[in-house]
Amino acid sequence: MTDFNFAPPGDKKTLESGSQLTPRFDINGLVTAVVTDFYSGDLLMVAHMNNLALAKTIETGQSHFWSRSRQELWLKGQTSGTVQQVHEIRTDCDQDAIWLKVSVAGAGATCHTGMPSCFYRRIVKTDGSVSLIADDIDRQFDPAEIYGNEA
Amino acid sequence: MTDFNFAPPGDKKTLESGSQLTPRFDINGLVTAVVTDFYSGDLLMVAHMNNLALAKTIETGQSHFWSRSRQELWLKGQTSGTVQQVHEIRTDCDQDAIWLKVSVAGAGATCHTGMPSCFYRRIVKTDGSVSLIADDIDRQFDPAEIYGNEA
Repeated sequence: MTDFNFAPPGDKKTLESGSQLTPRFDINGLVTAVVTDFYSGDLLMVAHMNNLALAKTIETGQSHFWSRSRQELWLKGQTSGTVQQVHEIRTDCDQDAIWLKVSVAGAGATCHTGMPSCFYRRIVKTDGSVSLIADDIDRQFDPAEIYGNEA
Repeated sequence: MTDFNFAPPGDKKTLESGSQLTPRFDINGLVTAVVTDFYSGDLLMVAHMNNLALAKTIETGQSHFWSRSRQELWLKGQTSGTVQQVHEIRTDCDQDAIWLKVSVAGAGATCHTGMPSCFYRRIVKTDGSVSLIADDIDRQFDPAEIYGNEA
């Protein structure tokens, strides 16, 4: 694999207006990764990337993240077949977040629950109380069939 | 202000399929907030919310965040006039991220650099090296005029 060897972040001006990718990894070595659907624009998921996950994503054109729960590199969709093909990658002003525009293979579900997006519930305020209302969308797969008891 | 008094997160099943908002704040008391444009769907910014910022956002319909650099509640656009009107709020499967769909007031710039979105640069791989290419878009305001030397 190409070693992208990200340089350390420079000063504020360089970080914001430079043409060099110098990710500002946090104290745990992570940046936030936001994934949207290339075609619909919908937000699919939010995850995290370390140096390796970001380099692998740029290198292969498939979304890689760092699984904080499993503490390992995570090729998204490796188990479920819902691999993400990356059409475009962006970073933000202070380079601590990454935006991936992707198309999803397989059943097309991004969420491990089988839903197309992890954000399948609206937060709604009614008469001073707050509740969640789920989208009326069928699951794209049965999590138990794909992940067994892990889901 | 209404005290929303978010209940602590329940087990995995309740968190994922329940109708109660029980945000999973991290060790610093924060969840990730992703902001997209209600009309274009574009990703505008990524920020963080603590309990208070989330409650204020739900209560007022204007985006509030927790500024990690200033360690204070942050009504987005208070200085620049680019307040965000929230059209819809969502949360994800494990309730550690929030999605705001907003329309932006004032000059319409979300980024403190004066750009419409913080994600104004693409990450491009060419012949094994990686660089950033900025969108060819004019700034919506001059940061120095709005923020003085802070920008």
